[in-house]
Amino acid sequence: MALSSLSRFLVSRNLGRTADVKVSLWLSSKCGISTSGPDLATDARSTSFKRFADYTIFKGKAAMALSPILPTFREVNSSKYCKRGCVMMTFWPAIATKKYDWNRKQVFALSPTEAGNLISLGPEESCEFFHDPSKNSSLEGQVNKSLKLSPTGNDQGYFLNLMVTNKIKGTNERFSVPVTKAEFAVIRTILTYILPHILGWSQSAISQLPQTASNLHKQGFGTRPDPALEWEM
Amino acid sequence: MALSSLSRFLVSRNLGRTADVKVSLWLSSKCGISTSGPDLATDARSTSFKRFADYTIFKGKAAMALSPILPTFREVNSSKYCKRGCVMMTFWPAIATKKYDWNRKQVFALSPTEAGNLISLGPEESCEFFHDPSKNSSLEGQVNKSLKLSPTGNDQGYFLNLMVTNKIKGTNERFSVPVTKAEFAVIRTILTYILPHILGWSQSAISQLPQTASNLHKQGFGTRPDPALEWEM
Amino acid sequence: MALSSLSRFLVSRNLGRTADVKVSLWLSSKCGISTSGPDLATDARSTSFKRFADYTIFKGKAAMALSPILPTFREVNSSKYCKRGCVMMTFWPAIATKKYDWNRKQVFALSPTEAGNLISLGPEESCEFFHDPSKNSSLEGQVNKSLKLSPTGNDQGYFLNLMVTNKIKGTNERFSVPVTKAEFAVIRTILTYILPHILGWSQSAISQLPQTASNLHKQGFGTRPDPALEWEM
Amino acid sequence: MALSSLSRFLVSRNLGRTADVKVSLWLSSKCGISTSGPDLATDARSTSFKRFADYTIFKGKAAMALSPILPTFREVNSSKYCKRGCVMMTFWPAIATKKYDWNRKQVFALSPTEAGNLISLGPEESCEFFHDPSKNSSLEGQVNKSLKLSPTGNDQGYFLNLMVTNKIKGTNERFSVPVTKAEFAVIRTILTYILPHILGWSQSAISQLPQTASNLHKQGFGTRPDPALEWEM
Repeated sequence: MALSSLSRFLVSRNLGRTADVKVSLWLSSKCGISTSGPDLATDARSTSFKRFADYTIFKGKAAMALSPILPTFREVNSSKYCKRGCVMMTFWPAIATKKYDWNRKQVFALSPTEAGNLISLGPEESCEFFHDPSKNSSLEGQVNKSLKLSPTGNDQGYFLNLMVTNKIKGTNERFSVPVTKAEFAVIRTILTYILPHILGWSQSAISQLPQTASNLHKQGFGTRPDPALEWEM
Repeated sequence: MALSSLSRFLVSRNLGRTADVKVSLWLSSKCGISTSGPDLATDARSTSFKRFADYTIFKGKAAMALSPILPTFREVNSSKYCKRGCVMMTFWPAIATKKYDWNRKQVFALSPTEAGNLISLGPEESCEFFHDPSKNSSLEGQVNKSLKLSPTGNDQGYFLNLMVTNKIKGTNERFSVPVTKAEFAVIRTILTYILPHILGWSQSAISQLPQTASNLHKQGFGTRPDPALEWEM
Repeated sequence: MALSSLSRFLVSRNLGRTADVKVSLWLSSKCGISTSGPDLATDARSTSFKRFADYTIFKGKAAMALSPILPTFREVNSSKYCKRGCVMMTFWPAIATKKYDWNRKQVFALSPTEAGNLISLGPEESCEFFHDPSKNSSLEGQVNKSLKLSPTGNDQGYFLNLMVTNKIKGTNERFSVPVTKAEFAVIRTILTYILPHILGWSQSAISQLPQTASNLHKQGFGTRPDPALEWEM
Repeated sequence: MALSSLSRFLVSRNLGRTADVKVSLWLSSKCGISTSGPDLATDARSTSFKRFADYTIFKGKAAMALSPILPTFREVNSSKYCKRGCVMMTFWPAIATKKYDWNRKQVFALSPTEAGNLISLGPEESCEFFHDPSKNSSLEGQVNKSLKLSPTGNDQGYFLNLMVTNKIKGTNERFSVPVTKAEFAVIRTILTYILPHILGWSQSAISQLPQTASNLHKQGFGTRPDPALEWEM
């Protein structure tokens, strides 16, 4: 039961038409990528391509996974809107040795700057982030989440603690995952890798910037950026 | 008014023909990507693809955004010309709590070496760059820009100060944005990411270098580069 | 003989159909990529594309190579399964000056976290990993492998020691490769580079995450991730 | 004269057929990419795509440029051969203020490990590399090159010194380029970026590793690499 109920982030891609991608938050088995769930059984797009990525740490009291949420671009009334990506941190409580309750997960979405905080965290430093998933809605203040990293000591890693208080349900859940120095090096490496992607810089970087002939003639081809860039914009 | 007048850097790409890309400095809303501005209303190339990327920090006195400007390649009289990219830093003054005057922006284009300076800046170090956007023109010296980074102390980040003196208009604008250690980690990460791109190394890296059969036979397939490379070039 | 018997990891790709790739563990010469081994002689797919990548260090007593093993995705009964990648470390004993016995290799597959361990290893730190390639099988405990890194002193690099004990064959092989600080910088650089790839993050990063219109309307386009992400998932 | 005689490294790519790329060491103007030199005037492949990448430092006595040389793959008698890439360092002497003799260049090809040496060079450390471009030929020992980096002091950067002794011509050329800390940060950043590319790891990383069904059934989908990888290879 646990495996099949684990909601996972999957990326759906149509090779033929980039504009025709679909929402892809699927229920799938922990290590599998289902391409024919109930909703997709009649989906004729057999070339659609799904991928799955995370980094999961299994510890005594809980498991924690990191997975990337890329920025999104959507066209509404002839305008495209962008929404910044993030890195999703998911926690599951342990229910026995090496067994986790995949139904009782809690998530925490790291913003780019929070990711930068983890990247630059010194070996003896702590940090804490507070989120309210209902911010700017009528439910604001009903659910509070805090994520805290504190050093285990002797440059050996960090304790990762998530606390989720839900006043509506009257619940208060806590997850604690000790992260070794090696595991934190993986986390730091993948956060460093994914930051330009969740900010949209990688999509820009594979594009070519064209320019007008008039701009071209002004430029000195020197080692400094074209001064005209600073003048005209 | 503020949103619609914010000039933004957008990257235009034609999927079908890379040679046919167009200039793409658009006026668009802050978080939107307009695909049908006045100039584009009659543009039939509906497959053109626009993307938008920045990293913006909103502070009490001003907001600051970083965005990549990729190198450009243009063919003139059967020759292709390249122009190095840069990282554009844009500042807007605050006019009220969480409100910024998007019309009064000032920009500063970081060269690759200036980006390298930020990347390697120690926690207690300062640096300052001076730009004249009219350099090598009849207006040289009329506009002066200086960007200064100085540590806030206790390894907590930097003050980012831009000063723009315009003798023609008789203006002197100053912007000050405190950047936390976490925010500077994001800046350092995306500058490190984008440097090879603005130098054109990433475009080269996805290409294949071919070679002649004669070169092939000379080479020893060893772990060192082919000595012939140093001899013949 | 030595060259032709060296088993190497090759990546096979069909440009036309990504679903039709084939297994690609070939016997090939050390620096060559064979496209027409016995099994492929009748293979009509002349457009298939093979690539080869490693980083090899040749030392007095042994040679050591690192090569990437990417994650794999496979469809079985309409479900796709993923398997995490790793970095394969291969050792060969020296039999004379600059000659190695390419038949007597031993391999050690670094997990993502073990790679993170090497990336974050301080100049005076040691680490040791233990593997049993028959784990969870009837042969468990028959073959034991340990890989140990210990500093050579004075920030000059590390000794890399692999020990493989095979109770079935009654053998006990040891390999020792001194790695200079410069060589370890290469190892650290390529491990940092490959980590997001073996975790599948790079494949996700080139995909676009779509979203529903309802999600779009909820989002504030702010600098923080959409709070709804934390609420609904 | 100087501009048109500067030999540069250009990467040629045919979008249609990857197997048909041509050698691309062209004489081109310093900042231009010529697509119609004498040899190409009758070349009908108008879609061929050329790119250019370097990082050049202009100093009082000499200029120095870094440019990537990617690994090469070539098919001979049904076998593909690979040759590792490198990073080419080129020096030109100054002949007047901001003028350089583009005809008198000397090159030094950094191997991956030499690049690793620069990446990990401490602020007060030195290193020196020796190359003989005629190694393993009848001219061995006639030309000797040495590249030395030594700190300028106070964590301010390095002196980059190239010495080329040519016994055949009876010449002894020396180039000295002081590199600031910011410029060396750029060099370190692009060397870190390009290392996986010149080792061929990036080409592998964009390929998919397939596997057999039998391998699939053996694997435990756990967080560690499949133990079978270490057993069977």
